[in-house]
Amino acid sequence: MSTAQARAVFDSAGPFQPTEIQRRELQPHDILIEIKYAGICHSDIHSARGEWGPVQYPFVPGHEIAGIVAAVGSAVTKHAVGDRVGVGCMVDSCGECVHCHEGEEQYCLEGMTGTYGSVDRYGQYTQGGYSSHIVVTEDFVVRIPDALSLEAAAPLLCAGITTYSPLRHWDVKAGQKVAVVGLGGLGHMAVKFAHAMGAEVTVLSQTLKKKEDGLKLGADHYYATSDVETFKSLAGSFDLIINTVSAQIDINAYLSLLAVDGTLVNVGAPAEPLPVQVFSLIGKRRSFAGSSIGGIRETQEMLDFCAEHNITPEIEVISADRIDEAWERVMKSDVKYRFVIDIATL
Amino acid sequence: MSTAQARAVFDSAGPFQPTEIQRRELQPHDILIEIKYAGICHSDIHSARGEWGPVQYPFVPGHEIAGIVAAVGSAVTKHAVGDRVGVGCMVDSCGECVHCHEGEEQYCLEGMTGTYGSVDRYGQYTQGGYSSHIVVTEDFVVRIPDALSLEAAAPLLCAGITTYSPLRHWDVKAGQKVAVVGLGGLGHMAVKFAHAMGAEVTVLSQTLKKKEDGLKLGADHYYATSDVETFKSLAGSFDLIINTVSAQIDINAYLSLLAVDGTLVNVGAPAEPLPVQVFSLIGKRRSFAGSSIGGIRETQEMLDFCAEHNITPEIEVISADRIDEAWERVMKSDVKYRFVIDIATL
Repeated sequence: MSTAQARAVFDSAGPFQPTEIQRRELQPHDILIEIKYAGICHSDIHSARGEWGPVQYPFVPGHEIAGIVAAVGSAVTKHAVGDRVGVGCMVDSCGECVHCHEGEEQYCLEGMTGTYGSVDRYGQYTQGGYSSHIVVTEDFVVRIPDALSLEAAAPLLCAGITTYSPLRHWDVKAGQKVAVVGLGGLGHMAVKFAHAMGAEVTVLSQTLKKKEDGLKLGADHYYATSDVETFKSLAGSFDLIINTVSAQIDINAYLSLLAVDGTLVNVGAPAEPLPVQVFSLIGKRRSFAGSSIGGIRETQEMLDFCAEHNITPEIEVISADRIDEAWERVMKSDVKYRFVIDIATL
Repeated sequence: MSTAQARAVFDSAGPFQPTEIQRRELQPHDILIEIKYAGICHSDIHSARGEWGPVQYPFVPGHEIAGIVAAVGSAVTKHAVGDRVGVGCMVDSCGECVHCHEGEEQYCLEGMTGTYGSVDRYGQYTQGGYSSHIVVTEDFVVRIPDALSLEAAAPLLCAGITTYSPLRHWDVKAGQKVAVVGLGGLGHMAVKFAHAMGAEVTVLSQTLKKKEDGLKLGADHYYATSDVETFKSLAGSFDLIINTVSAQIDINAYLSLLAVDGTLVNVGAPAEPLPVQVFSLIGKRRSFAGSSIGGIRETQEMLDFCAEHNITPEIEVISADRIDEAWERVMKSDVKYRFVIDIATL
């Protein structure tokens, strides 16, 4: 075992405190990463507070991890000491089921091992990236292209892949009409990706407060969902809607914005069910779908896509003593558009 | 105008009474059909009773129509007097929008003209197939292959195409696992089609009452949904679920039966919304979709498929004086599996 510095919450109410955690000894295929930056994802908050099920404390969140390879196990071939690498929401999977073979480890039939809050195949409770070091099997470590700074790369490991994957899966092409609901950490990435893929991009946000930002990020149109006219004027418009909002929304109003054969994909999940009027699906052969992060191969593809298209998230780098404050601001949607912890300040 | 005999309800409570209705004079592209058989669809009942919105009385239902061409307008090229033909749920559309051009007139942006209960482009309230004659523009009249009897062809025009179309759209292939929820008029056709397409077919029915039938129709497996074990043992199994039940179901339980990337398609619509737990979609990138009948080209393809694969619905032919009784039995699911009215008894 090796000791890593970390910031943890010790109960569901917080606050964060410095602590030490143990990382496992390097196994033949393991990589020891010196973490440089860790993004703050809304999921960190839900998980740490036990809102998505019980967790163990002390709890170290963080699944948007960028760093440098510090050591490698004896059989590692994919990365070398000094490489710039990243780790996202998963650190392992069975490797044998149909989905693992297809490179979609997030849908592993045995269940993937989450970067935090999971029990890994060594029986250890996983702890995340608000930490100085992490040990991860090489298959779950991706390469960060030189064109991307480590701090900008971090949020791509969750916010990036979570929005890139459904845009690819539903095959967004030039000329298609894509709407993004919510302009936060995920939403602003969805806008950048959809724009880079050639789509005509519309942001649907509660108010017009961030309109100027949205248009700068690549949106062609920006509408306030608090305005009922929005739903009238955009009825039947979109080929794809990416809903990044985890709160309860009037799902039928949003489904009514889809064209024939259009799909609304939730990448966030409200705790309460959404009451779907089936007529709103049948009348135009619409679909309501969900999507979870992306596989390792696709995560690498996404990072390369970002490097090629010069796409990076809008970030605010903070020191480790400001995590509690940052979480409060995330809860109030007061972030443009992702907090990234400078792990050197741990 | 020409006079046709018909059976109509005169208010939402019924019963049926013989009456006379007017059909329009033949326009250049019109076809006068002498109706031989008309299927009884659950939609007829919902519509006639005003459950799907207000209708005009007297009201003549019927959108599963099979008959013989009795006369043609001056410019008709697609059918000739004496041809065996059918008419389904629509009798017209704008013909100019993207969906009409794609042959998916059911999704016409101006709204297709329903076979009954619609106002057509001549300003006339459309009346359905429980009638001796109907006048329909040639583009909405399909050819019934010689291999199919007229009485067996009738239910294909709605129950057939409504289930065939989603199986085709979601691209069912040999070896795929398809579940059909409900073994009624639509469900029994879905089983036959999915089986003919090479899928491994499972019927999910409330009880095992019709199990023997289901297996004869082509199902490989038959499960009772009243048994909670069904949902445990089939979790994550199906590539496609066709839900033919219009009543409220526990949608999350059914979604849990889908494999990764699986889709549950509703072809019936309950009046009340279905509360969807979004986590049940996200975890396996599942979709919840709806589908409405099929286009004219696909309806012809479906009839030809039936002729080629020797597929016909299971029907019970009744005389016109038994429509009320048949409706009562449809309401109680006491039909194997489609009533067809012998229009000669009108």
